[in-house]
Amino acid sequence: MPPTRGSTANPTALTPIPAPSALIESVLAQIAFDAHGLVPAVAQQHDSGEVLMVAWMDRAAVAETLKTGEGCYWSRSRQKLWRKGETSGHTQRVLEFCLDCDGDTVLLKVAQTGVACHTGRRHCFFRSLRADGFAETAAVEVDPATIYRR
Amino acid sequence: MPPTRGSTANPTALTPIPAPSALIESVLAQIAFDAHGLVPAVAQQHDSGEVLMVAWMDRAAVAETLKTGEGCYWSRSRQKLWRKGETSGHTQRVLEFCLDCDGDTVLLKVAQTGVACHTGRRHCFFRSLRADGFAETAAVEVDPATIYRR
Repeated sequence: MPPTRGSTANPTALTPIPAPSALIESVLAQIAFDAHGLVPAVAQQHDSGEVLMVAWMDRAAVAETLKTGEGCYWSRSRQKLWRKGETSGHTQRVLEFCLDCDGDTVLLKVAQTGVACHTGRRHCFFRSLRADGFAETAAVEVDPATIYRR
Repeated sequence: MPPTRGSTANPTALTPIPAPSALIESVLAQIAFDAHGLVPAVAQQHDSGEVLMVAWMDRAAVAETLKTGEGCYWSRSRQKLWRKGETSGHTQRVLEFCLDCDGDTVLLKVAQTGVACHTGRRHCFFRSLRADGFAETAAVEVDPATIYRR
């Protein structure tokens, strides 16, 4: 069964969740979306500092993230809103929504449930360059067949 | 005086620096560059886990990074190779070059000298959303006038 989603107040988040509409509108006005209406978003595990993944957000994904407090993106492959973990339960509870100096990149500090990567690994950056090529630095923790392919 | 750059061997790096040409070619073949020939790159401070910045790399920037062991990018505003810190001395020594599951995002684990942000802050993600809007969470440490605007 998919986890319950929605605008449950999250008292541990630094960013107010659910964010009021006026605040969401103000955020959207400050983001420099690219020609495709997208902005890259880095998801970082809030306590370990691990960079979990980089994905893209459109205006609707930013708004949905701030309303629900869970990481939502724009799936470029499926061309639709992607509520991360909606099927698999591998959701990202957003504690802090940050924007960079130029307003063209978002950083989400999150509490990841389960694994962030569709390969079943905790994070997506498991290939690290060594003398003989890329080495895998994270193990598969969950059967990829159970994870919704982004 | 700009710092000395070049192919000085870095024994503390996990990624071999300078990387041999064949290894660089193999990396370039595994990166999924976008329609503009670019890939986003996250620079993360290797010990603190701090996400310092997100920038873009083209093939030449990837090759230059792996040859010199210092973070090099493609400046979209200046439309040229951007050897970060070339003028200011705020360089990034690359310890680990990582690639994500889809091959379309790079993660550099670096030792940042000075500040990463052109505003003079340690990192670029100093705007964190709170109830009354974005709060600044990092102080200006260096006079921005001394930093080469990317």
